[in-house]
Amino acid sequence: MNAPAPKTSLCFLLAAKRCEMADLQQLAQTSGLVRRTAALIHELQRERGLSNLYAASLGQAFVAERRLQLARSDAASTALRAGFDTLDTAPPRHGARLYSRIAFALHGLETLPRLRLEVEGLRAPPASLTAAYTRLIASLLAVVFEAADTATDLALSRRLVALFHLMQGKELAGQERATGSAMLATGRADGDAQQRLLHLIESQDRCLQVFETFADEEILALWQASRSAPLQADIERLRRQLCNTPPGQPLDSQRSATWFDTCSQRMDEMRQVEERLTDSLVEQCQSRLRRVADEMHEIQALQARLDGDASALDDHAAAPLFHAPDPAAPNPAPPIGLALEKSVLELVQDQATRLQALSAELETVRASLNERKLIERAKGLLMAHQQLSEEAAHKALRDLAMRQNKRMVDVAEAVLSMASLLSPRN
Amino acid sequence: MNAPAPKTSLCFLLAAKRCEMADLQQLAQTSGLVRRTAALIHELQRERGLSNLYAASLGQAFVAERRLQLARSDAASTALRAGFDTLDTAPPRHGARLYSRIAFALHGLETLPRLRLEVEGLRAPPASLTAAYTRLIASLLAVVFEAADTATDLALSRRLVALFHLMQGKELAGQERATGSAMLATGRADGDAQQRLLHLIESQDRCLQVFETFADEEILALWQASRSAPLQADIERLRRQLCNTPPGQPLDSQRSATWFDTCSQRMDEMRQVEERLTDSLVEQCQSRLRRVADEMHEIQALQARLDGDASALDDHAAAPLFHAPDPAAPNPAPPIGLALEKSVLELVQDQATRLQALSAELETVRASLNERKLIERAKGLLMAHQQLSEEAAHKALRDLAMRQNKRMVDVAEAVLSMASLLSPRN
Repeated sequence: MNAPAPKTSLCFLLAAKRCEMADLQQLAQTSGLVRRTAALIHELQRERGLSNLYAASLGQAFVAERRLQLARSDAASTALRAGFDTLDTAPPRHGARLYSRIAFALHGLETLPRLRLEVEGLRAPPASLTAAYTRLIASLLAVVFEAADTATDLALSRRLVALFHLMQGKELAGQERATGSAMLATGRADGDAQQRLLHLIESQDRCLQVFETFADEEILALWQASRSAPLQADIERLRRQLCNTPPGQPLDSQRSATWFDTCSQRMDEMRQVEERLTDSLVEQCQSRLRRVADEMHEIQALQARLDGDASALDDHAAAPLFHAPDPAAPNPAPPIGLALEKSVLELVQDQATRLQALSAELETVRASLNERKLIERAKGLLMAHQQLSEEAAHKALRDLAMRQNKRMVDVAEAVLSMASLLSPRN
Repeated sequence: MNAPAPKTSLCFLLAAKRCEMADLQQLAQTSGLVRRTAALIHELQRERGLSNLYAASLGQAFVAERRLQLARSDAASTALRAGFDTLDTAPPRHGARLYSRIAFALHGLETLPRLRLEVEGLRAPPASLTAAYTRLIASLLAVVFEAADTATDLALSRRLVALFHLMQGKELAGQERATGSAMLATGRADGDAQQRLLHLIESQDRCLQVFETFADEEILALWQASRSAPLQADIERLRRQLCNTPPGQPLDSQRSATWFDTCSQRMDEMRQVEERLTDSLVEQCQSRLRRVADEMHEIQALQARLDGDASALDDHAAAPLFHAPDPAAPNPAPPIGLALEKSVLELVQDQATRLQALSAELETVRASLNERKLIERAKGLLMAHQQLSEEAAHKALRDLAMRQNKRMVDVAEAVLSMASLLSPRN
């Protein structure tokens, strides 16, 4: 198709279109992975919950449920890893950041069998067990985050941002379930755990607000429909009981099962919406791909006409750029060569303007991901300057936020602004 | 190399490294183009100046100089287009935005022969002639801007940002030369032209400040050394004379040649630094490429050891994740399989942390490009809402800035913030 002739502006217009196609094809592949990642996270959240119940009963209860769940998690994990296997890695077609996130998540999955053996042998302290599953889930969520942060299509980017926040909200709900269960298991209210619960509830609400901002109408309608009012009321009542019991006072540990089931039902509701959202993401990719393919065919058709019309163009090569309009002359249609050339210019200009506007709009959508980036940067700073592990850095930020009754992101911003004051160059 | 075995975290670590390699290879290619683009812009700036002198003399003077210059511009243009021809467009390896900018610049180059014919036939009014060349140069500068905005290597990104601002400063110096020459040709001071001159001088200074912020020591030293103090003094004296003569008062048109030559000398000084900067950019790409290749070999070596050591790893698959330290036990070296696995985890974590920090730092460097992006967005808004051409939108912003004695970027920000107030969704 590409003759050895010098490349014209139309060639590069086509190349830009091909890039958009390639980006969309990558996005379609990533969206497929995101769907499988969401499914696996859901199973791992259940596995974390059941493993905790199993450990709390000292291996006496939830034996069969947990075993069944391991098989379900394995199936979801196998599906995701098969997805990873289909990704081109040589030559790589996605960005370094996505591959790096996948490497990290895969490393977590590779250590899952060992984690399970620890649980099985009742050798994992409940807090460490929860933390290990939470870390693994966080590494999988980071894959979705990366997909949202690098998508180059506006509609898809909005959907991915909505999805990421729904998934993050659901994961915070899972952590709320675990924190509440752990406190109920001790039989007494605990001030730290209560602070943590309040923090998880607040962060969850913020995530779901962002989700609602970016979700489209269909998903919003499903979201409203899926939330059962009685369940909401149950959750709020249980939350109140857990958080408002004075520290040190006994808790009704009979509530443990109710708490776990109610929280789980809520997560299942979220999962329904999440599933529909991941499906619609994959569908949207396909329909965008068809549209860009059509646009590419139009440019190719124009190129074919121009090639056939090269002589006409040559005739007009000396047509004036600046010509005083002759008021006496009728307004003739421009000769065919020039008309074609004019369409090329318009196409080129349209594309440049559109890509420019697109980057600006993408930046606006991605701004909602900045909160997380700020927290990650502040964590990185603490890790580097204070030689902390990622977990310790996260805990340091969280504790600071809880003590000062601030949001994590505010504390992160404070940390970063101090750093720019202290470092020799900002 | 890739066995059909399932991909491990190390495969994706390698893929991320390969991405970095591919990005650097692209950047090396783009840097080569940037070097040729800078060279062509320099020739076109001279061609614009000489064409103006030729037109002002009604074709009597600068005939040979201009003819010689056309040949020099053609040589630079041929070199750049040869560079464009070597870019992969199927499959495309660069971003849609870069191709789209190239398409636009190429379209401009394709119309250059017609522009020259107009100049030759004295059919192009001086203002239109200057505007047409300025448009073409702007489309070439946009290619450099794009390269700076998409570079994914921190050191290279800093250099490209420095280069872009130096080039933009030099182009503003060229516009200053043209504006001054045009006013001198009329023989009288003119309030509008004087405002425009002051504006060009101020924007130039701002560009050169950003350049100085991002240039490395070698370039800064060259920059300081290249600026001859007497020339600076001459420029400032001529600027004062041009800008402070009361509007309507006669100007000594004998100064025309002095003005032109002094401005040209200054642009040549800038060109020296620009040339060294573009050369160092290409060298830096090569040295970064070698370094990333070394890092990749290290990972491959680790993979080879792991493959050879798979059995050792299997033996330790059940090694505990949570083990209470036994204070009585000596601190044994971890078994070889685990030690290797630990290095994989460290590599994966390092990479993720590094890429995260890198994105944040790149964002900081690119922030200096935001000023231009804001102006572009405001222009786009005016074009869409008020059906203006790009040139008219630019002029509208510039006139507003001049009338309100504000910077373009402040006016642009005001326009954008109004828009978000007025539009149904921001």
